[in-house]
Formats: sequence, C-alpha cells, structure tokens
Amino acid sequence: MEVTQVHMNGSLAEASYANNSLLQRKVISLTKPLRDEAITNLYCNTLPRSLAIADLGCSFGPNTMLVISEIIKGVEKLCQVHHHKSPEYKVFLNDLPGNDFNNVFKSLDTFKEKLRDEMETKIGPCYFYGVPGSFYGRIFPDNSLHFVHSSYSLQWLSKVPEGADNNKGNIYLTSTSPSNVIKAYYKQFRTDFSFFLRCRAKELVEGAQMILTLLGRKCDNPSSKECCYIWELMAMALNDMVLQGIINEEKINTFNIPNYYPSPSEVKLEVLNEGSFVINKLEVSEVNWNALDDCNAFDFESEMSESLRDDGYNMAQCIRAVAEPLLVSHFGEGVITEIFDRYRKILTDRMSKEKTKFTNLSILLTRKP
Amino acid sequence: MEVTQVHMNGSLAEASYANNSLLQRKVISLTKPLRDEAITNLYCNTLPRSLAIADLGCSFGPNTMLVISEIIKGVEKLCQVHHHKSPEYKVFLNDLPGNDFNNVFKSLDTFKEKLRDEMETKIGPCYFYGVPGSFYGRIFPDNSLHFVHSSYSLQWLSKVPEGADNNKGNIYLTSTSPSNVIKAYYKQFRTDFSFFLRCRAKELVEGAQMILTLLGRKCDNPSSKECCYIWELMAMALNDMVLQGIINEEKINTFNIPNYYPSPSEVKLEVLNEGSFVINKLEVSEVNWNALDDCNAFDFESEMSESLRDDGYNMAQCIRAVAEPLLVSHFGEGVITEIFDRYRKILTDRMSKEKTKFTNLSILLTRKP
Repeated sequence: MEVTQVHMNGSLAEASYANNSLLQRKVISLTKPLRDEAITNLYCNTLPRSLAIADLGCSFGPNTMLVISEIIKGVEKLCQVHHHKSPEYKVFLNDLPGNDFNNVFKSLDTFKEKLRDEMETKIGPCYFYGVPGSFYGRIFPDNSLHFVHSSYSLQWLSKVPEGADNNKGNIYLTSTSPSNVIKAYYKQFRTDFSFFLRCRAKELVEGAQMILTLLGRKCDNPSSKECCYIWELMAMALNDMVLQGIINEEKINTFNIPNYYPSPSEVKLEVLNEGSFVINKLEVSEVNWNALDDCNAFDFESEMSESLRDDGYNMAQCIRAVAEPLLVSHFGEGVITEIFDRYRKILTDRMSKEKTKFTNLSILLTRKP
Repeated sequence: MEVTQVHMNGSLAEASYANNSLLQRKVISLTKPLRDEAITNLYCNTLPRSLAIADLGCSFGPNTMLVISEIIKGVEKLCQVHHHKSPEYKVFLNDLPGNDFNNVFKSLDTFKEKLRDEMETKIGPCYFYGVPGSFYGRIFPDNSLHFVHSSYSLQWLSKVPEGADNNKGNIYLTSTSPSNVIKAYYKQFRTDFSFFLRCRAKELVEGAQMILTLLGRKCDNPSSKECCYIWELMAMALNDMVLQGIINEEKINTFNIPNYYPSPSEVKLEVLNEGSFVINKLEVSEVNWNALDDCNAFDFESEMSESLRDDGYNMAQCIRAVAEPLLVSHFGEGVITEIFDRYRKILTDRMSKEKTKFTNLSILLTRKP
C-alpha cells in the first residue's frame, strides 16, 4: 500500500488528530531551542526580504500553527534587536492530499488576528498556502524555501516495505521478526529518507535551515523494545482477537505498519551520503507515553478534561488519531472500536507497571552553498 | 454580513457546487478565445521560466481544473511552435477559507496524471497550492503572478451593501427598489471592484494577463429584469411563504443578496480610474438559464441523467449550490427545502414561457509597465 493514500483522522472524528495531539505538541515544545538556533542561523546567513517557511506533514489542529507562530515571533524579535524591517512571510502548510486542509484553513483568520495582537510591533505581510502532496517527492520549485520544519512525520515510510511478508503475528518490527523483514524496513527507510533529502536539497536556498524531528531510537537494534513496544502491544490486542476468531489470522500476517524509527547514526549516514546539508545539531530526547505526566512546564491544564487523566485511554486515542485510517482500510470498519478498546486496556495495564517512553531524534541542517 | 463567511455548497451535499456547475462550465468554454489571446500576449511579453497562474474564486469540482489544464496546454503548444523549453508551473487555487479545498486537493493527483497523458511532450514541473482568503484583500506577494483567471466570482460583493435596509419585499435590486438601495449596491460594487484591482495591481508582474468573467448586464439600469430576474423569482417564492405564515415578513425585509451585476461601462470606469491595467478586450456574452439547451458544441451527453432534463430543477439546483449557505444562515435550515421546491416550480413555469438568459462580462487586462 502506498502511504500517499494514508492520513490522520479527520476533524469530525471523536478520535481526531486535532483533539489527540498533545504528545506531538509536547515534542514541538521540547525542540524550541533548536528552532531558535535555526532562526539565528538564518538571520546570520542574511535574512531575505521574503521568507518562505514550510511545515511538512503539518496535519491539522493547533500544532502546525504553534510552530509557525513561534518561527515568525523569533524572526520578528531579531528584526527588532537589529533594527531591521520585518520581512514578508510566505507560509506553506504541506501534508498528503487526504489531510483535512479545510480544518487548517478555517483557523487561519483567527490565527493571523491572534498573532498580530500578540506582537508589539507591526509585522510584515503573511501569506498562507496549502500544499497537498507527499514530501517523498518534489512539492516546491527549485531554491524557493528558507526554513523547513517537520515534526513526527518522517517516521512514516512512503509505503510498506517490500519483502516483509513473513513477519507473522507481528505488525511492526519486534524481537521475533525475521532478519529479512528488518532489512526490508531499513532499506525502505534509506530509500525514503535519502530521497526526501535529495528533494529538499533542490528546494532549499543556500543557507536555508531545516529542522526534522521524528520518532527514533537510541540503541543500535531496530527491533528493540525501545521503539517497537507501542506496536507490539497493538499486535497483542490483534492476536487476542485472532484467537477468539474475531479477526482472521491471515489478516494480521499481511499487515505491517509503514513506520521506521531510525538511530542517530542511521540518520547521520543518509545526510552525509546525500551531501547537500551540514549537520548543525543531532539531538535525542525522550517523551513519556503519557505526555501529560510531565507537563508541569506546559499550560495544558485548561484543556484537561476528566477523560484525559486515563493514561491508557490517552495513548490509545493518540495512536488511533494517526493509525485508524490505516487499520480501517486493512481490517475493516467493523472491528475498529474493539481493537482500540482492547488496546486501551493493555496500554493502561502496561503504563501502570512500566515507565514507557518514546525516543525522538531532532536534526538541524543547513543547506550547503 | 461579511461575505468572507459565505461559500458554495460542500461536496457532500446533493446540491453541491461540483454537481451543479454546468452553467459555469459553459461560460468557461465561451471565454476560451480570450484565454488563448491572453496566453499569446503573455508569451510575447517574454514568457518567464517559472509561470505563476492563479484561479481566484476557484470553488471546487471540475471547472477550476478545466481552466488550469487549458492554460497549461496553451502555453505548451506555443513552446512547441517556438521550440522553447517548457516552463515550470506554479498553480494557485484561491477561494474563501470555507471552500471545500479537501475536494480540490483529492482530485489533484488524477488531474496531473491525466494532463501528462494528454500531452505529446514532457511538460515542466507543476506545483499546486491552495490559497484560502478573500480576493478583496491581498492574498499574494508583490509581483508574483503572471496569469490570473476568475470566472463567476466577482459579481459577489465583499458584503451586503450598507444602507440598503429599506428594500422591502425584495432580496435584490428590482424595478421597485428605492433609489438609495440601488445607489448603495453600486457604491459597494465600486468599492469592492476598485480594491480588487488595486490588490491585483500589486501582485501581478508587468505584462501579466488577467481575465475576469462575471455576471453583468448590457443595459444601463442596474435594476432591470435582464440581471435581476433570477432573484425576483426567488423573492416570489419567499413572499408566498410570508403570505402563508411560514416565513416572517421581517426576515425577507432584512435579506439582501450581496451580488452586483455591472454594465460594461461601469467595469471599464473602475479599470480606468485605478489606472494599472490596459483593457485588451471587454466582451459581453449570453448564456441561457438552462445551459444544456444549447450545449450542442459541448460533450455533456454522457453526464446527462434524467433529472437534468427538467429546466426548473437544474436552475434551482444551480442557484442552490451557490446560495444555500447564505439562505440557511438567514432563514434557517428548516425552510430551505421548501424554498427551493417553490423556487423550482416558479422557474419551470417561467422558463417554459420565456427565453431567459444571463449576461456575462469578460474582460482581458494587461498589467502596465
């Protein structure tokens, strides 16, 4: 299956991405220092009069707007310090054509008003564009971007790896996955990530900054629990349903999640091989499965309803928001609620017994001259 | 009411714009010679390597794609004749933020494939962008567009004219509208259209081509039947419902359609006053209310279902597709079906007795140096 057909849950769903992306927001907050550094770099590499910013895999909901607002504010701050005129902003919001762009666009007027209210000085004109298309391909003209951001999108492969069809009883890499399956996943990651870099190398101007954050791992083993556990627990739910005759065994054997969680060295290798970018920073961070556990530093309280206090529910909804369309297209609409009910129970149990975390990789790149 | 909140019927509705825009398609076909002329002009004014095309008020459905495909094909043809390399295309699809952009975006991949299949030679890269926002305001950076197209959008005013609140029993201009109401409508048209021109003057490069087609009139009187009849018949339906106590009289007295159908000289006056554009052509054309009556030249047959042969139904659906959200927000959801049932009957009766037509104005403008 081509992942160009896959997308987050639409805005009308209870388990919509917009309502279940606190984890992603947490990660965006964690990487703020990196964005500040990128803005300073950009400013030093001479700030253009017209600044083109892209958020790749923007999805919808408040997160993409949070990032854009922060970047604009960062640039404005430097303009004030250096007594420079505010530039013109062109903001490109990219995602797959199935994304709920209507949702994004309807929030733009409010966003622009809020941004202008929050600024002490008059900012330059802001133009917003929706860019439908896979970032595993060219989506912008040559030399047209100055600042590229992408968060929690690049762990999605362009498709399910070929030759991974003997991954029986699993839906992602695990300790029991055959070595050819692990190789197939890694190969697909290399193909996709290097093509992503080649496309962006054409689209970014010299000195342009690109910050990529994706789910990854610290250890060398791509099938380690560190990165695979979240899908292992879903496979448990699915296998229970197979045992009870609710799902056909063949169905789970032919299902593989098109994700890959690379290590820092795997990411670095592709960047060095491609050759168009300098690595300014490559950072590893962690975030608890329940991002709300350590949200002291963030003002989520006002948004916390009763239901948000159930760790298993939160995580199940979070995964549902990003994976439901994928599961529906394979297992059918009829079993979805049951899959997620069971998944939730398993998650609640495990999260009460273990400290479960995601590993994030964030990389700051500068386009070479 | 600000018309920035108004939009065509979404893609899921039976009376969706996409399913009820044959009339608009007919008009687009009528203005093909003008687009051919514009493409030749652009080519002679030196064709850029990167060509930025915008469709303003694109709505959704096949019409916007028809125009874009035709423009690209026209440019490609000239490139072949002159043995020039195909340019890169940047296509900007603009409409109000409430437009169903999801619908537009989902059709893009198929559109691109079809376009490439239809071309004999390899065309330059095509990049597509959605641009949410009112064209009665800046939506593009300075000097960024080469070709602007807008069809059947500019008769929509930015808001209901102020000071038109004594237009009792009417919902648009008619022979019984007080003179202050007529003046208020004309004033709003002048304000909006001249601001539109000022915005585009900034956005278009020297030599850029702009083709605008809007509903208008031939005669001097803005309240003549020529342009007002379609709303007069809807007012009849509404007034019948007032008489029967279904709609409150106050409701109809406070409802005015935010349209204006200018004469050629009114359009010309604003262009000359603004001063940034040369008028290459200003044409008047007519289209029957039932566009299917004279569709011999067009291949609509395959799409004609039984229902499409009822003239009144077709026209009612056509108006419903563009005006339903407006009517719902004023009269409420509950009476909509009845309004359009009654409207349909009135239309069927009138269309069987009279030859009813819309008047279109099309203007081809070149941005002065």
